[in-house]
Amino acid sequence: VDTSLIPQGQAHLDDLTKPRGSLGRLEEVALRLYLISGGSKPSVDPARIFTIAGDHGVAAEGVSLFPQEVSRQMVLNFANGGAGINVLARTAGIGLSVVDAGTVGGTYPEHPALIQRKVRPGTDNLAVGPAMSVEDCTRALELGIDLANMAADEGCRAVGTGDMGIANTTPSTALFCAYLGLDPEKITGPGTGLAADGLRRKIEVIRRGLAANQTAVTSGDPLRILAALGGLEIAALSGLIIGAAGRRMAVAVDGFISTAAYVSAWKLCPAVADYCFLSHASAEPGYASIMQALKADPLLHLGLRLGEGTGAAMALFVMRSAAAIFNEMATFSGAGVCKA
Amino acid sequence: VDTSLIPQGQAHLDDLTKPRGSLGRLEEVALRLYLISGGSKPSVDPARIFTIAGDHGVAAEGVSLFPQEVSRQMVLNFANGGAGINVLARTAGIGLSVVDAGTVGGTYPEHPALIQRKVRPGTDNLAVGPAMSVEDCTRALELGIDLANMAADEGCRAVGTGDMGIANTTPSTALFCAYLGLDPEKITGPGTGLAADGLRRKIEVIRRGLAANQTAVTSGDPLRILAALGGLEIAALSGLIIGAAGRRMAVAVDGFISTAAYVSAWKLCPAVADYCFLSHASAEPGYASIMQALKADPLLHLGLRLGEGTGAAMALFVMRSAAAIFNEMATFSGAGVCKA
Repeated sequence: VDTSLIPQGQAHLDDLTKPRGSLGRLEEVALRLYLISGGSKPSVDPARIFTIAGDHGVAAEGVSLFPQEVSRQMVLNFANGGAGINVLARTAGIGLSVVDAGTVGGTYPEHPALIQRKVRPGTDNLAVGPAMSVEDCTRALELGIDLANMAADEGCRAVGTGDMGIANTTPSTALFCAYLGLDPEKITGPGTGLAADGLRRKIEVIRRGLAANQTAVTSGDPLRILAALGGLEIAALSGLIIGAAGRRMAVAVDGFISTAAYVSAWKLCPAVADYCFLSHASAEPGYASIMQALKADPLLHLGLRLGEGTGAAMALFVMRSAAAIFNEMATFSGAGVCKA
Repeated sequence: VDTSLIPQGQAHLDDLTKPRGSLGRLEEVALRLYLISGGSKPSVDPARIFTIAGDHGVAAEGVSLFPQEVSRQMVLNFANGGAGINVLARTAGIGLSVVDAGTVGGTYPEHPALIQRKVRPGTDNLAVGPAMSVEDCTRALELGIDLANMAADEGCRAVGTGDMGIANTTPSTALFCAYLGLDPEKITGPGTGLAADGLRRKIEVIRRGLAANQTAVTSGDPLRILAALGGLEIAALSGLIIGAAGRRMAVAVDGFISTAAYVSAWKLCPAVADYCFLSHASAEPGYASIMQALKADPLLHLGLRLGEGTGAAMALFVMRSAAAIFNEMATFSGAGVCKA
């Protein structure tokens, strides 16, 4: 973004009928959206959330409370409008597309809300080797870029990221460790609800995965790391973020898994940072350390840990409110209000 | 509220297609709204925010950066739709009524969005004696109760509180000190933007006010305290909260000033606590100590310090989302999704 626009955006915010800075983070968001819009009216509407699903070979290690078939069942639940993200996207007036990037099993029945672009049916077990080849990872990234272009062509001004994939906090945690140099012990959490022994096992699985993929990790090559430790939905979300930034759309990054996709995208293409808004502080206990490492502070603190894009839906409402403040409030002179 | 409904509300939330508790505070809010609705469909819609204005004799002590006429100018700005609360209420699809409970000066031109119920044109200077008589305070409380009844008769399921009144962080701080036994030194903040010397003076003014009204403060009588240290908009907001709870509406309590009105209402009538949702963590530095004293944690942390109901508007969206989750999500059995 063109940071030379900051003074003029800030001057506009300071001329609105409110004490300077009194709308806090709404003003910060408004200014960033103004930069993203290149100095014209900031907006996030229309917005579309992509909830992208993929399965994980590492589920075989017993790192999740839910069986793997739940990924597929949830894709159908998304298509039928019954999941948390359906409700929250609807409530916020945001479009939703469900994408199969790589769940286990064959194709789904045709459904207007479901985009079937399976790269492959699930990844391999990252605990024993690379989750996928660099080629498959690239195809998943390209899928995400396609989705961004689809949204941009539709006229979207913002996208939200959402994930579904049983066991996907495990690859996400591994990616945070590899990209940010964090310790699995410190940032591994219970996901959908592991007890202490399950958590212990999950930490060991991630350690094994980092060791089994040491060549990729130490290469520092973000694409090789994403292929070795990521997932198909995570890579597709990274592509979505890169593609959205390329088309100058704002991105509401959902929680733990989407943040792993964001970090991957940022390592691949640092310019995406200007376009991304971290939605909410995931209740996963490692999230705070990750935010520290990123020097970031998400918009919402609602204790969410569902994924699917639920935090992105809520954050897009905050971003919409921020844009409206910038565009619709009266100025001191216009409203005849004395300045301090 | 009837807490015997908790198990059945919780059982419903746990049967929705998501890991148990994974929607964090949305689930907490949904359950509270379910109790407020008496076990029928939780809802906050339609919702109406009342932004209530009043002036303060203590403004003469130079405790605000803005001149007193700004209260009146902002009432007109509200009526004309140009203030922060207008934009945020509109964005969230929430009705807004502006109420003159006691600004300085005469009546305003007629306006459909403006309710003119001036109890008196501003309070007296609380630094030297009671801000108002118990009779005037009672009239302001009754005004607020009338507003709640108006909203309930219109079919509202929730109200939001909003304030306007130059210098009103001073009476609010004095009320927190008197009701919660807090030290002015610890909780007085810069309001609209006082520098260090102004803040010093404001602390002294509050100390003087607490001393000048010592009989009321030590009486422990919440009504006498509210009359001695409060404001007309603060008392009207307290009445609004009491009236809303009486009509079983949920209340989104805005920031610093509205929280002072909430504490006043709660001291007058402890049952209001079941109906109130603290919207957002005010950026006023004392707010954290006040939350500690109340053992409460507001829904949003966006650094807002504008008042007017801006935080309530944002929180009502969160509350609406929570109600939608309760009402609209599929259940595990209904959607054919395996439970953990």
